[in-house]
Amino acid sequence: MRVTYRELHDVLSRALERAGLEPERAQLSARLVADASRDGVASHGLNLFPRLLRMIATGIVDVRARARCVSAHGSIERWDGGRGVGNLNAHDAMSAAIALARAHGIGCVALANTNHWMRGGTYGWQAADAGVIGVCWTNTLPNLPPWGADVARVGNNPLVIAVPRPDGHVVLDMAMSQFSYGALAAHRLRGEMLPVPGGFDNSGALTQDPAAIEASRRPLPIGFWKGSGLAVMLDLIAATLSGGRATHEIPADPEQETGVSQVFLALDASSLAAPGETIRIVDAIVADLQVRYPGERTLETRRRNMTDGIPVEPSIWQDVLGYVAHTS
Amino acid sequence: MRVTYRELHDVLSRALERAGLEPERAQLSARLVADASRDGVASHGLNLFPRLLRMIATGIVDVRARARCVSAHGSIERWDGGRGVGNLNAHDAMSAAIALARAHGIGCVALANTNHWMRGGTYGWQAADAGVIGVCWTNTLPNLPPWGADVARVGNNPLVIAVPRPDGHVVLDMAMSQFSYGALAAHRLRGEMLPVPGGFDNSGALTQDPAAIEASRRPLPIGFWKGSGLAVMLDLIAATLSGGRATHEIPADPEQETGVSQVFLALDASSLAAPGETIRIVDAIVADLQVRYPGERTLETRRRNMTDGIPVEPSIWQDVLGYVAHTS
Repeated sequence: MRVTYRELHDVLSRALERAGLEPERAQLSARLVADASRDGVASHGLNLFPRLLRMIATGIVDVRARARCVSAHGSIERWDGGRGVGNLNAHDAMSAAIALARAHGIGCVALANTNHWMRGGTYGWQAADAGVIGVCWTNTLPNLPPWGADVARVGNNPLVIAVPRPDGHVVLDMAMSQFSYGALAAHRLRGEMLPVPGGFDNSGALTQDPAAIEASRRPLPIGFWKGSGLAVMLDLIAATLSGGRATHEIPADPEQETGVSQVFLALDASSLAAPGETIRIVDAIVADLQVRYPGERTLETRRRNMTDGIPVEPSIWQDVLGYVAHTS
Repeated sequence: MRVTYRELHDVLSRALERAGLEPERAQLSARLVADASRDGVASHGLNLFPRLLRMIATGIVDVRARARCVSAHGSIERWDGGRGVGNLNAHDAMSAAIALARAHGIGCVALANTNHWMRGGTYGWQAADAGVIGVCWTNTLPNLPPWGADVARVGNNPLVIAVPRPDGHVVLDMAMSQFSYGALAAHRLRGEMLPVPGGFDNSGALTQDPAAIEASRRPLPIGFWKGSGLAVMLDLIAATLSGGRATHEIPADPEQETGVSQVFLALDASSLAAPGETIRIVDAIVADLQVRYPGERTLETRRRNMTDGIPVEPSIWQDVLGYVAHTS
């Protein structure tokens, strides 16, 4: 089932207004969610939206909170998200990092006490649209056993890196697990094995069977010990810079996951470069790859969905329509 | 075979003086190489030293060059390495990034036109010893096929992240390939299979046989498509910030690998935190892991080698001793 971008945005925005957001904030948050579905990432767009509404209803997400700077030192700031709407907090934090980068070449905002940012790539595209390099990551609830353990003690801590490019930004958006639980479920429902090993089964053997990994709760970090170590480092930096929660302090139930810590970095390469130099370098790297660059497929999907309509999961779409009708 | 740290350092320092470095610079470069072997990373310490001497002899490495700042904007600087000694250039660049972080909370130095930094972890330990978070990476010659290709078009672009901790810094030092060619050779010589799949054989099947990967020249990026994407992003940022070479412009022969681009970031978490807060957060994360933290093994190895002596590969050690004797 497909809907127009305008329809999707309007319904999401009305739902958020009904949930208590100010109209302007509802529209921005709705745009970020709609953009994720438009870009082919419905798993972190519309499909996460009902959970956001539930977490607003239970009071875990405070619709009136605004992230604010609590301390600053030169080009780095520490912000408190006040348990506000995750994608708005993240958007505001990246905006502040971009402003710091314009003033100082580089800017960093560490955000504590916030909520799930939904699609991480959002803030990479935001930085690249502003013409700067964006790097950001979030910690998460414990959902990944570190290498050498069989119980989840680290988060999959998604990392986003974006480099602006006039013909299409280069944007990497990747979690530290080889496959998300969402991806495991999707493969299982399609009756497909994973293309590469994605975790351990209950006997401790590497497997490509998604159901076996769902059963063991032992998904694999990317690169085995390497992604495990990287997840630890991202958590350390996010928690220490922001002064907020580390993964081990975040409730392990996704419906209760709150108080996460995030880092937003922006770097203005053009401030050091000759005119046109940065674009030439980026274009040459992309051209030499001879395979798809990170973000290339996103742009193709975006174009197709803006023409054909945005795919929506019918049951989720009906839920949101019901919420809007019910509460209006 | 083992030698004392002092003996190792003195011989390396004398070799570098003979090769034309000023005494003070020879001592610093020798210390960085000796520290790598002391920490159990001889592959990027003493074992790379003969190549450094050869590249000085052929004029690829300019022993008299000093890296210098060529443009600056607030907290970010672009440096030209002048094709100088790689570990000295990297050390100077991280020193400058640390100074920027002290002044502005965060600092970034992008270094173009430099040479192999030998052990990347060196500059992470350097930042952590100074009490700040260090993040740095280098691009390399093309040595890794991006996901979807069978020819090396990206570098393994080592990434280093270090967080200071009084009881032992947390330091991650990882390349984007699952195993280096050095690690593949070491496994093959011991007659061992790799512990996990490390690349493709000539038929395009994933394999744990190190010799098959050496033959195909198709090592695996960490996390398959994810590490491949991350390698591209690290190259893009290093080349655009520094204005230097991207991987596709770096000669593919290791004996000719020069003009690499590097990024050095330092972040001063303590500048935003209450006294003791950062240490408490880091210690709590490390304690909760219940597996080794990145860098823990390094510290154990360091203690053992300082007591028992630094292991050296006899043939390489004799080469260096011969160089010192021959040229004195």
